[in-house]
Amino acid sequence: MSVRFDLTTFGELMLRLSVPLGERLEATNQLDLYPGGAEANVAAALARLGRQTAWFSSLPVNPLGRLAASHLRAAGVDLSGVIWQGAGRIGTYYVEFAAPPRPTQVIYDRADSCITQMDASQVDWDLLLDTRIIHLTGITPALSPGCRTLIPTIIARARAAGIPISFDINYRAKLWAPAAAQAALTPLIQGVEVLFCSQEDAARVFGINGEPETVLRQLADSSAANKVVMSIGDQGVLAWDGTTILQQAAVPAQIVDRIGAGDALAAGVLHGWCEGDLPLGLRCGVTLAALALSQYGDFVITSPEEVAALLAAAHGTSRVSR
Amino acid sequence: MSVRFDLTTFGELMLRLSVPLGERLEATNQLDLYPGGAEANVAAALARLGRQTAWFSSLPVNPLGRLAASHLRAAGVDLSGVIWQGAGRIGTYYVEFAAPPRPTQVIYDRADSCITQMDASQVDWDLLLDTRIIHLTGITPALSPGCRTLIPTIIARARAAGIPISFDINYRAKLWAPAAAQAALTPLIQGVEVLFCSQEDAARVFGINGEPETVLRQLADSSAANKVVMSIGDQGVLAWDGTTILQQAAVPAQIVDRIGAGDALAAGVLHGWCEGDLPLGLRCGVTLAALALSQYGDFVITSPEEVAALLAAAHGTSRVSR
Amino acid sequence: MSVRFDLTTFGELMLRLSVPLGERLEATNQLDLYPGGAEANVAAALARLGRQTAWFSSLPVNPLGRLAASHLRAAGVDLSGVIWQGAGRIGTYYVEFAAPPRPTQVIYDRADSCITQMDASQVDWDLLLDTRIIHLTGITPALSPGCRTLIPTIIARARAAGIPISFDINYRAKLWAPAAAQAALTPLIQGVEVLFCSQEDAARVFGINGEPETVLRQLADSSAANKVVMSIGDQGVLAWDGTTILQQAAVPAQIVDRIGAGDALAAGVLHGWCEGDLPLGLRCGVTLAALALSQYGDFVITSPEEVAALLAAAHGTSRVSR
Amino acid sequence: MSVRFDLTTFGELMLRLSVPLGERLEATNQLDLYPGGAEANVAAALARLGRQTAWFSSLPVNPLGRLAASHLRAAGVDLSGVIWQGAGRIGTYYVEFAAPPRPTQVIYDRADSCITQMDASQVDWDLLLDTRIIHLTGITPALSPGCRTLIPTIIARARAAGIPISFDINYRAKLWAPAAAQAALTPLIQGVEVLFCSQEDAARVFGINGEPETVLRQLADSSAANKVVMSIGDQGVLAWDGTTILQQAAVPAQIVDRIGAGDALAAGVLHGWCEGDLPLGLRCGVTLAALALSQYGDFVITSPEEVAALLAAAHGTSRVSR
Amino acid sequence: MSVRFDLTTFGELMLRLSVPLGERLEATNQLDLYPGGAEANVAAALARLGRQTAWFSSLPVNPLGRLAASHLRAAGVDLSGVIWQGAGRIGTYYVEFAAPPRPTQVIYDRADSCITQMDASQVDWDLLLDTRIIHLTGITPALSPGCRTLIPTIIARARAAGIPISFDINYRAKLWAPAAAQAALTPLIQGVEVLFCSQEDAARVFGINGEPETVLRQLADSSAANKVVMSIGDQGVLAWDGTTILQQAAVPAQIVDRIGAGDALAAGVLHGWCEGDLPLGLRCGVTLAALALSQYGDFVITSPEEVAALLAAAHGTSRVSR
Amino acid sequence: MSVRFDLTTFGELMLRLSVPLGERLEATNQLDLYPGGAEANVAAALARLGRQTAWFSSLPVNPLGRLAASHLRAAGVDLSGVIWQGAGRIGTYYVEFAAPPRPTQVIYDRADSCITQMDASQVDWDLLLDTRIIHLTGITPALSPGCRTLIPTIIARARAAGIPISFDINYRAKLWAPAAAQAALTPLIQGVEVLFCSQEDAARVFGINGEPETVLRQLADSSAANKVVMSIGDQGVLAWDGTTILQQAAVPAQIVDRIGAGDALAAGVLHGWCEGDLPLGLRCGVTLAALALSQYGDFVITSPEEVAALLAAAHGTSRVSR
Repeated sequence: MSVRFDLTTFGELMLRLSVPLGERLEATNQLDLYPGGAEANVAAALARLGRQTAWFSSLPVNPLGRLAASHLRAAGVDLSGVIWQGAGRIGTYYVEFAAPPRPTQVIYDRADSCITQMDASQVDWDLLLDTRIIHLTGITPALSPGCRTLIPTIIARARAAGIPISFDINYRAKLWAPAAAQAALTPLIQGVEVLFCSQEDAARVFGINGEPETVLRQLADSSAANKVVMSIGDQGVLAWDGTTILQQAAVPAQIVDRIGAGDALAAGVLHGWCEGDLPLGLRCGVTLAALALSQYGDFVITSPEEVAALLAAAHGTSRVSR
Repeated sequence: MSVRFDLTTFGELMLRLSVPLGERLEATNQLDLYPGGAEANVAAALARLGRQTAWFSSLPVNPLGRLAASHLRAAGVDLSGVIWQGAGRIGTYYVEFAAPPRPTQVIYDRADSCITQMDASQVDWDLLLDTRIIHLTGITPALSPGCRTLIPTIIARARAAGIPISFDINYRAKLWAPAAAQAALTPLIQGVEVLFCSQEDAARVFGINGEPETVLRQLADSSAANKVVMSIGDQGVLAWDGTTILQQAAVPAQIVDRIGAGDALAAGVLHGWCEGDLPLGLRCGVTLAALALSQYGDFVITSPEEVAALLAAAHGTSRVSR
Repeated sequence: MSVRFDLTTFGELMLRLSVPLGERLEATNQLDLYPGGAEANVAAALARLGRQTAWFSSLPVNPLGRLAASHLRAAGVDLSGVIWQGAGRIGTYYVEFAAPPRPTQVIYDRADSCITQMDASQVDWDLLLDTRIIHLTGITPALSPGCRTLIPTIIARARAAGIPISFDINYRAKLWAPAAAQAALTPLIQGVEVLFCSQEDAARVFGINGEPETVLRQLADSSAANKVVMSIGDQGVLAWDGTTILQQAAVPAQIVDRIGAGDALAAGVLHGWCEGDLPLGLRCGVTLAALALSQYGDFVITSPEEVAALLAAAHGTSRVSR
Repeated sequence: MSVRFDLTTFGELMLRLSVPLGERLEATNQLDLYPGGAEANVAAALARLGRQTAWFSSLPVNPLGRLAASHLRAAGVDLSGVIWQGAGRIGTYYVEFAAPPRPTQVIYDRADSCITQMDASQVDWDLLLDTRIIHLTGITPALSPGCRTLIPTIIARARAAGIPISFDINYRAKLWAPAAAQAALTPLIQGVEVLFCSQEDAARVFGINGEPETVLRQLADSSAANKVVMSIGDQGVLAWDGTTILQQAAVPAQIVDRIGAGDALAAGVLHGWCEGDLPLGLRCGVTLAALALSQYGDFVITSPEEVAALLAAAHGTSRVSR
Repeated sequence: MSVRFDLTTFGELMLRLSVPLGERLEATNQLDLYPGGAEANVAAALARLGRQTAWFSSLPVNPLGRLAASHLRAAGVDLSGVIWQGAGRIGTYYVEFAAPPRPTQVIYDRADSCITQMDASQVDWDLLLDTRIIHLTGITPALSPGCRTLIPTIIARARAAGIPISFDINYRAKLWAPAAAQAALTPLIQGVEVLFCSQEDAARVFGINGEPETVLRQLADSSAANKVVMSIGDQGVLAWDGTTILQQAAVPAQIVDRIGAGDALAAGVLHGWCEGDLPLGLRCGVTLAALALSQYGDFVITSPEEVAALLAAAHGTSRVSR
Repeated sequence: MSVRFDLTTFGELMLRLSVPLGERLEATNQLDLYPGGAEANVAAALARLGRQTAWFSSLPVNPLGRLAASHLRAAGVDLSGVIWQGAGRIGTYYVEFAAPPRPTQVIYDRADSCITQMDASQVDWDLLLDTRIIHLTGITPALSPGCRTLIPTIIARARAAGIPISFDINYRAKLWAPAAAQAALTPLIQGVEVLFCSQEDAARVFGINGEPETVLRQLADSSAANKVVMSIGDQGVLAWDGTTILQQAAVPAQIVDRIGAGDALAAGVLHGWCEGDLPLGLRCGVTLAALALSQYGDFVITSPEEVAALLAAAHGTSRVSR
């Protein structure tokens, strides 16, 4: 029996306001604006590849909410499950892209956004569950008490309906302390279909240190996840498919904008998951992550043709194609 | 005995994010950024004219707070009384400048900014009261319970110290209802030295309708203010100096950006007040207001030379001076 | 029995490359880019109002085709009926917005675009006819022999299926001569449900001159259309509903960009048609046209809330709403 | 016997640095850059109309000098007579385009530019005199002692060679006082072929006041010029052709940038002069002036086709031509 | 007997529309515009060095044609041989500058441009042949049947007049297949004075593979060209002067824009050819190519002084010169 | 007894007009504008770190002078000692940021600026000497005869008042020859408290060559300075504290804009000097220099928090902090 979506997801989308490399945020008079949010990034990337995806969240009935929606619709994401609020705000965050010795800086201004007001009664459960997989992240439970309640509810209902969960830890130190994150997230990731966790988050949140393969195995053990995908920085990803460890080197890329690369990786892996082919997913994942690094914006803009060409090529090139 | 400042003021400063006329906020990918806030606008305009002014408020210790401070310092405003908070946000507001049939739209995102957390213990009272006049507006009491308590405290301490108050009603319908504003503001304006209230706000907040002169007299009666300045739209201002009614026509201007024109008017009037010359203040006020209309940004950028030249001229001109 | 779309349409979408007022196209080094096309403009405007619309056409499988599609998807238009061609071009046109004495200039570079290669075998007829009305324009038959054949085929199949036709004359002097247009268009508009024709086109294409009401009646007589909507320049529109003549004054607007205003008018009229309320349609039409004039781009960007507010207001205002 | 150029000219070209309307020069972080100079403007405008023109001056051998030269060459002006100096500066001037009540402001920074160092030995006299007419302005003698000597030398040599002079008074109050200008210019304009002088300059420099026709006649009397062209503000021009007074109304225009309009007028008049048709020249002049007003930059960018179309039309239009 | 031009050339010029690195073409709303075309690039670069050059082609009588002409005139190129067409288009091409893993992408939209309509009757043969050398490329014969006929005609007439030919293979895979190119180009390059062919094109078009020196010798053998210049990627160039092989290392450069570097190389080589000094030409060639890489645009903007300074320096430097 | 300022300084501030990397100055139509001047850069950087600093100079009473003042005030620099001139110019300089093989180019247009007209009678000596240290550079004596007299006067008065001098050689080859600089500067630097001289300037101006340590010792010997700080290019700095040689490696940085890095180094060293801790000063100096390299503009924009974080970190990082 066919389902409507390949993937549904629930999470926050913010407006990102940034200054380009070399300019100081505190001295600018113009800001670039892009939408961004971990779950929306995944849904948009998969839609760009031709997948049917839907994003569930809440947006204000004002130009800022419509701006966010336009970007998602342009990517091809279904928004039927969005709750439009007459009053309420959309979160924002500021980015100062920077050259060393300065790190790229992020300032969040996301408190009390529309999604933090949501509860289970506002979710269109039939629609949310009409999917092959639901993707969630460790950001959402940190947003508000309502969200901290809602995420376990979604997981419970998905389990009851036999819908697998994809979960990306995505630890945000500016939202909560490691111990709080560990306490909240550990029960949520038990038995998920796909668990995404960077080696850095494994150490910070779960206190798992050591060689990459050891960390991966411990993540698998402690979560009982069917598949675990662990990014190991610029080197690529390591994955556990339930029986063996797979390794996928990163695609060399020139870094224009780091933000969203992890979500692009997740999207690629889930694209492969939809095909029942985790190795393909890992290759797609590092390819999408490299594409995300090479362009501005949290959303990765691409096409099936572009990803296919990059998968076919040994590696990217700086030559002009004409 | 000389005092340090000509004018001190307490209020909120926000970051204004806007799109130019002809573009839709919901379809933009770039926002212009200016600082703005009724009280800061007044302090900055007076400083541009060579007056000693100080702005009291609270800002976050981050690039956005520093951006706001830089603009005020550039204008020449003293910031010794600003409370810097390690955590906290600066309010923002979005503006879509528009051509008819669309009105220019403002979307506030100002809840829970740093100033809303302030209380009397954070005010450097010696500094705030070391002034010839304190300027306040009807916006601040609407921001938070703390602010609603703080404004009467400032007024009480000022009275105890014999410092006159300038108060601009500045009703904001998106912050509170007319009745709430009337209840809160009526006691605050009793016996102030200068009361600013537009004819429109007189009707909306205090229910005073009728011919301009009648409205002005009623404002004077009900507030016992020493001087009342009432803007009557594009036509100019009417003022009560305690004995007679003065009228000052508006300076013809091409409207580039309406926001901040009322604050520029107040600054000009207070500039005249400092000279003990209300008619001069009214002429300065309409001149500064016209300058504010003719340029982007809430802060009016000008110089003593420019204002002097405009006061000397019968009216502005579209000729090139070379 | 319910149908899938409120309106389907078939036509060309181009990329518009423009310079702002005051700059010369021949001296620029940067061009603003917007999508535009008479039929796509109508579909997008109706989708912004919440209507279900679909656009049928052909686009190249390259970033330019995807750019066009993104804008339509962002507006909410269904693109299932678009034929994607591996090779082929998207038409472009250049606009030099100008101040008098210069007229705003348009340079078309649209020959041999993808749509000109289309034939009836490429149309998803089930989808195209799953609609309450089909909207066509007099531009498409002028594009290529294929298109000149395809438009009558669409009309014939629609008639066979009982689907009414909306037809906008939209004469383009740079595509064909008046006599050729008259010969081609006269049979196409016989008995259409809604005929749009400006007074100027009535004169240029059909040789109908005289007082507006006379011209309208002659248009109605010669086309046997059920409803005829005739724009009479900046004054508004005149309409024939089969029995009487309706008049609707234009909504006062500041003109930022004239292009697309006629399509916005058509969209508004068809919005009313969907409600079975032509007078409402005329009011919506002049409102959407005024909105289109006040913003850059061929697509009118708006929301149901904005249109409702403007319909409720007597007229637009230059005041700031805050 | 044919000559090489229709018109040669000698004068200064500066770089103009400006901010758009609504922005303050003192608060900007970006400046628009255009070349400009009264004589170069005339040469460039005539070259755009297909005339052979040459500009004589001096430029520094650096990117700023080359920038100026590129703009002139792009227009089609011959630069063989330019003296390139290894050391030296190009003058600049700053413009703050402004909305009322602010006038558009010009700040000159032109002292000691390359041209001020020139003397007669640097002029390629054969080339300068290989022309039908030489155009000079009242700006150049005010630039430096060298220039004050050079201009009479050019006039004397031209007379000796039988080459007529066109002279535009172009009084610049920021360069010299009216009395100094009058003393220097009066001998220079005796018996010139064409004298350009605005009614305002007639009053300021020569003290000639009164009704336009009276002023024109007095200008003609006091200069013994063969033809006198006097602009009378926004109303158009009045001209004396040696026997009668001609009047030409201005072409209605929307003012985007006033600077250069007077030079465009001179170029148009001289275009007609080349045809031996002063009335044509006046029509061309007001047309070019209107075009100059409608676009940014001192140089008017146009083409023979555009001017022909505007001359043919009764007046400009704000309609879109497509 | 002296000739008028150092070099004449015939070929197409297009408008290039691009987005900067990091932005996606399919998501942009603004395009940078530069002119570009292999032959025009060569003529413009040589003119910047003070050479007399002329470009023969066809342009439309519209702002886009005039824009192209302005850039060429600004560089100093003679346009007397350009055929202006009342109707017709100028080709365009789109560039998405990209960071790895994405290659910089080029999308051509050049079919049916004005030059494709040209035939021998439109060429001003006296002017074209009034030159020391004629430069042609392998792009032009691929543009249209007319161009495929015209190029051999030019070569035949040049030979008859004793004018040497410079020919750059410049294979464009998007215009024709290697076999077609080989068939068309092989007869054209027999006995040319200078043949330019990259090592990559030698392999793709002529099937010549192997060590660089071997490839170069085979190119020389199979073409009987007097001089062969072969770029070997980022390493520099190899040249055959009829007797020996010369090698010239590339000048280290930071790549900002690859497009036009090959044409800059050809211009530099031909500059040396004009001096009768091939080694100088190779040094100029790699210097101009490095300059082209370091700046945006197909045209290389430089000056005799800049090239002389770079030739004198061992290598470029990132130091500030002040 | 406490003094008012930590540091006072006297010198010129210019407007810097630049084009970004990849664009040619001679082909631009827009310039970025930043203020800059060696002494002002030092005063602004120290003010950003919370130090009390004052800048003495002269500026014109026009928007350009006010622009310069606004930037300094925004940084927190006291301007009470600035002489405002009714007539006069502010110097400008043009920068073409460039990629190899092109060097970044600087073109000065600074002759006859306001500061060159100053003499001792215009200095507010009480204010200038109310400081812990006075910072001067080797640029100022090269500006004009007045400045060449004024600098020794300042040094003499400072010595008389017991105020130590900080002196940065800052040789500018475009202002004077090495021999002239050596003759003028040698007496000025005798016995200064801190001497800044790059290894390159030691060789160019003073003819001191050899190993870095040897050069440093010779600089110390020949100047009798208490402390000597010598930058050794990208490797960092070497310093002599009167007894031993200290070495401080540079902080790795990505170079966005080299201009101002040397002044940032001086500011950092003087920040440490104020703390009586030269090693801290060296660490601050290389940190501020790295920050200056990583951002556009001559002024380094930073905060005490940012510098503290960088000093605490081993090195900068390209990671995103969120």
